[in-house]
Order: sequence, then C-alpha cells, then structure tokens
Amino acid sequence: MSPQFGPDFQHELAELLAWRRDVRHFRSDPLGEEVVAELLATAQLAPSVGNSQPWRFVRVRSDKLRETLADHADAEIARAGKAMTEDRRRAYSALKLHGMREAPELIAVFCDDTTPIGGRLGAATMPETRAFSVVLAIHTLWLAARAKGLGLGWVSVIEPGHVARLLDVSQDWRLIALLCLGQPLEPDDVPELERRGWQARLDWQSNVSER
Amino acid sequence: MSPQFGPDFQHELAELLAWRRDVRHFRSDPLGEEVVAELLATAQLAPSVGNSQPWRFVRVRSDKLRETLADHADAEIARAGKAMTEDRRRAYSALKLHGMREAPELIAVFCDDTTPIGGRLGAATMPETRAFSVVLAIHTLWLAARAKGLGLGWVSVIEPGHVARLLDVSQDWRLIALLCLGQPLEPDDVPELERRGWQARLDWQSNVSER
Repeated sequence: MSPQFGPDFQHELAELLAWRRDVRHFRSDPLGEEVVAELLATAQLAPSVGNSQPWRFVRVRSDKLRETLADHADAEIARAGKAMTEDRRRAYSALKLHGMREAPELIAVFCDDTTPIGGRLGAATMPETRAFSVVLAIHTLWLAARAKGLGLGWVSVIEPGHVARLLDVSQDWRLIALLCLGQPLEPDDVPELERRGWQARLDWQSNVSER
Repeated sequence: MSPQFGPDFQHELAELLAWRRDVRHFRSDPLGEEVVAELLATAQLAPSVGNSQPWRFVRVRSDKLRETLADHADAEIARAGKAMTEDRRRAYSALKLHGMREAPELIAVFCDDTTPIGGRLGAATMPETRAFSVVLAIHTLWLAARAKGLGLGWVSVIEPGHVARLLDVSQDWRLIALLCLGQPLEPDDVPELERRGWQARLDWQSNVSER
C-alpha cells in the first residue's frame, strides 16, 4: 500500500524545501554515530539510474586530512577571486564559502562510473546519469539532515581530481561533492549568497517554456 | 526564524524518501494548471551553484512532438536491448521503461551551461555542478509531486542531443532529463527494477568508507 500524505505534511515539506539552505557556519559539537549512520542510510534510498547505486561516501576522520582539504579549498577560493572583476571581488570577499574547519562531519561523495551494478541500464545512453544519481543521494541526505535541525554545506570551489588524490580513492571514482554536516551556528531565512548581494532568486516563470 | 520539524514530520519524510519511486504506469487524467505551476515553482526552490538557477523546463504540449519523442525512446530502448547478454535481455524485455504516451505531463529539463547568473561561482572549478543543480530541482519536483500523490518517471534511455534538437531549444541548453508526471496507475512499494528482478538494493554500509 502506498502511503498517503496529508495537507499538513505537504505544507511542512514545502517549508523544508524552501528553507533547506546551504550552511557554512557550524557548531563543532560532534553528531552521534547513530545520527550519521541513519543519514547515510537514508541518503541511499535515493533513486539511481538502473538502480546502479553508484554513490560512494567517504567520511574524513583524520584531522590532518581535513586541514589539508580546507587549505586546498581556501587556495582555490582565493584563486577564483583573482579572476573576478573589481565589483564582483568585493561581494565575493564577504562570502563565507565553507565550514570545513568547524563542521563535525566532513564527507566526500564520489561516483563510481564503472560500477557493473544495474547492468548499465540508462547509463549506456546517458553516462552522466550515474553522477546525477549521486546528486540525488546528496539531496536526500541534505533534506533528512535539515528535518533533524542539522545543516549541510556543499563545497564546490575545489579541484575534484586533487581532492580524490588526497583521499586516495579508486581511480574509477569521480568526486561529486565535498559536504560539511553539523549543527548550524545561526539560523537564517535568506541564503548566504542572496543575503550578501551575490545573486538573488529569479522569477520561476522565466525558466519555463512550452513546445 | 528557522522552522523546527517534529518527529511526526521526520517520520513521514523518511516514508516519502523511501517510497518516492520512479513511476512508469500513469493514468492519463490531466493535472490542473495550478498544480503544474505550483510544482514547477517549488522545483526552483532547489539549491544551485552560485545561485545560478541554470534549470530550464520545457513542457511538451504538442501531441505530435510527444509521439515523436516516445518513438525515439522506444527505438533507443530496443537498441540498448540488442547490446545485452541473453539473460539480461529476458529481464530487460519485461521492464516498462517509460509512460511517455500516457502521462498527462511530459517535461524536458535542460541545463544552461552558459548562464551568467551567479557569476560562475563554484562552476569555474566544477562546471558539472550546474547540471547537478538541475538534478536537485528535478528531485525537489519529484518529492513535492509524490507528497501530493502524483508520480514522476525519469526517462534516460534517450539520445540527449537528439531530444534537444527535436525540441528546438537553444544550442547552449543540455538535456538533463525527460520527465513524465501524472497520477500513478498502480501504487507499488517495490521499485519496478527490483520487482522485475533487474537490480536489488545494496547494503548501504558497503558504500561507506573512512579516511
């Protein structure tokens, strides 16, 4: 039997989706092991092309590795700023782009593009659907975490190949995301990029057309 | 103020995530225009890299275009079957891979990889994060639809460039997904691919490691 979802749930879900937020300011209090396990299990309920489940989660537990990764992100963030116009650079320098040093959990998420699981169904015509499946798992983790009052931040100003080498994973694994997870330091309604004048939300209708 | 989500909501959300399902069997009853609009607006609450909002939704309203697209998917599905081993082909031929002819809504979702919105933040180091943002919008749409009792099916056995040409969109737009949306014909707990013996779910712990 399929579950039915009532109007109250639908309303709260809409609130969750509107309020999900990318979090960059964390408390460093550790999360319980059972919370992390529950979230990693829930993430893997995500859909995947051909049910190939190509997501590979790597929890970074080593302080030294965490520091190396945070230094790398800082260097890439500084480098990206140099390529910007004066105006953009001013807004950019006010942004906090990651909480990699504070968040109690740092999780790298990879895609195994070579997995035989699911018999290449769908991935034969659209190979990138494997990476897309991993993104669906990350979003599932994100929403489940937020529903528990936890925050997630997706760090993308990094060089993915370099991060994969630092983490010494299989050469077949491609980095999809570096995630910070923990209790948010400050609740906030407006996303960091909007609040700091980087980029506002567009009218949704401008992105819809018909054929 | 950030909303708080109680245990009841968390429980229902877990049920939604576990039960989301890729739907391929639809009733053809049309959805109200206001429902479609609400879902397309909700989808665009998804996070995106640099707040670049690179998603472009195209609703296929023309019956002729729908038929052409369904024929294309059928041809690609047949072609994919020919490359399979005998065993796999038997399981494969029992699968229904799309409901493009029955679903009341057929929506193509593209990524504009050239959008200047968001100033290339994040996308400079990881260009594929734009496509990932579009995937997050699709998943948001999927969950919001399911919470309303509607089903979504993601068709990926298609040639994305060909579909983009058929829909005559900007050359800068890359097809991410072709979506069927409507009332599911038959509620079912177990995903089609699992039910038909294509691919079962793996133990989540096998996809988690530490460094």
